Amino acid sequence: MQHQRFVIQTEQKQGNVIDLSADQAHYLRRVLRLTVGDRAIAITGKGTAWVVQLTATQAEVIAPIEINTELPVSVTLLVSLPKQGIDEIVRCCTEIGVTTIVPVLSERTLLKPSANKLTRWQRIAQEAAEQSERSIVPTIVSPMSLTEALTDYCQGQQHRYFCTARENVPLFASILPSQLTINDSLVVATGCEGGWTEEEIKQAQKAQFQLVSLGRRILRAVTAPITVMSLVAGVSETM
Amino acid sequence: MQHQRFVIQTEQKQGNVIDLSADQAHYLRRVLRLTVGDRAIAITGKGTAWVVQLTATQAEVIAPIEINTELPVSVTLLVSLPKQGIDEIVRCCTEIGVTTIVPVLSERTLLKPSANKLTRWQRIAQEAAEQSERSIVPTIVSPMSLTEALTDYCQGQQHRYFCTARENVPLFASILPSQLTINDSLVVATGCEGGWTEEEIKQAQKAQFQLVSLGRRILRAVTAPITVMSLVAGVSETM
Repeated sequence: MQHQRFVIQTEQKQGNVIDLSADQAHYLRRVLRLTVGDRAIAITGKGTAWVVQLTATQAEVIAPIEINTELPVSVTLLVSLPKQGIDEIVRCCTEIGVTTIVPVLSERTLLKPSANKLTRWQRIAQEAAEQSERSIVPTIVSPMSLTEALTDYCQGQQHRYFCTARENVPLFASILPSQLTINDSLVVATGCEGGWTEEEIKQAQKAQFQLVSLGRRILRAVTAPITVMSLVAGVSETM
Repeated sequence: MQHQRFVIQTEQKQGNVIDLSADQAHYLRRVLRLTVGDRAIAITGKGTAWVVQLTATQAEVIAPIEINTELPVSVTLLVSLPKQGIDEIVRCCTEIGVTTIVPVLSERTLLKPSANKLTRWQRIAQEAAEQSERSIVPTIVSPMSLTEALTDYCQGQQHRYFCTARENVPLFASILPSQLTINDSLVVATGCEGGWTEEEIKQAQKAQFQLVSLGRRILRAVTAPITVMSLVAGVSETM
């Protein structure tokens, strides 16, 4: 099934008809170059999807469709914000299958993201979800401190990993396969330029995070979360 | 050992003295903000390294140093060039541990890289190797056709993988752990926007490549090689 995807709000679907917004109509016609009579897949971004056929101003539902492209585990990334490259983190991690991204303002974070950045990241996540053929659009929440992130986003997360460089700790790739099973949820934190402070590492350990290493090389703050997601996807899809 | 790295040409070292080029002097003083008397690590990019101490115009060798940050396998990536994002591929894959990158002009490649692009990619690889604390600077060769790449870069490569989307083939993450052992060399090919043509897939199979999948989602041409490297690093470092 290779129809192109677009995300709708659940309330846009009334019976078998989806009223298209101006943005959606533009995207379908100008970007995806679809015309009246063409088919596409409308997704809610929350797991529901339909094959639709385009009319002049609407999309008519042909049939519901099951999209089975999600990882068998739920992954929350706590991403300590680098100065540059957050767009790439959101885009790549969405493609690979992240569930939630929590932008973290750690002690060494230099960036002070403006309010419209969040809207931008959410738009990138939606585009990347459409293009990678996911059924879920990841949630990107407002940036918060590490303390808030450890408190708010770790409830009910069965597995908690805190990636550090230069610490003598187990490899994430070596411990993950024996710890993860289907339907588990996990949360993984990655640092920014300069890494975590000692205080932050202690704080994470107190919050029941396992310290892990991503290998012997020093990964940039942009590369680390992409590597984390690649490993989680690799391990979980082979379970 | 957290000294900062810089790459030298082997012939720059005469006895215990390294004559710094203008670029190196600028990099050490202006970018890394080191001054006379500070220490750094000079690497050849081919596996040899020394702790050095800076003088006004030179670096004096203090002692050789063994850097043990390389993957225990050698990885050649055949990267079908996307329109955008090659810099990111080179940077991230260098950090994660790639040995050689072969830019491939596949049938659906739209980019016609100018000659100075190769110099740019090699400079990015050098910077990324320094920053990620590798002892090897990956080799980036001139772009070539898939036919040339399959002929020239697959001799002696024990394991050959060809990543495809939408084919019903084994997951790369599931077959890699049972096939790889220490000191192996492997070559992995990833496609560009629009993927490989059927003809290219047949050509790869004829050249003894195993078709593999990177999962159920459609990864962009930029994300695929980074995911490949993350999986290879994860598997090989836990061997």
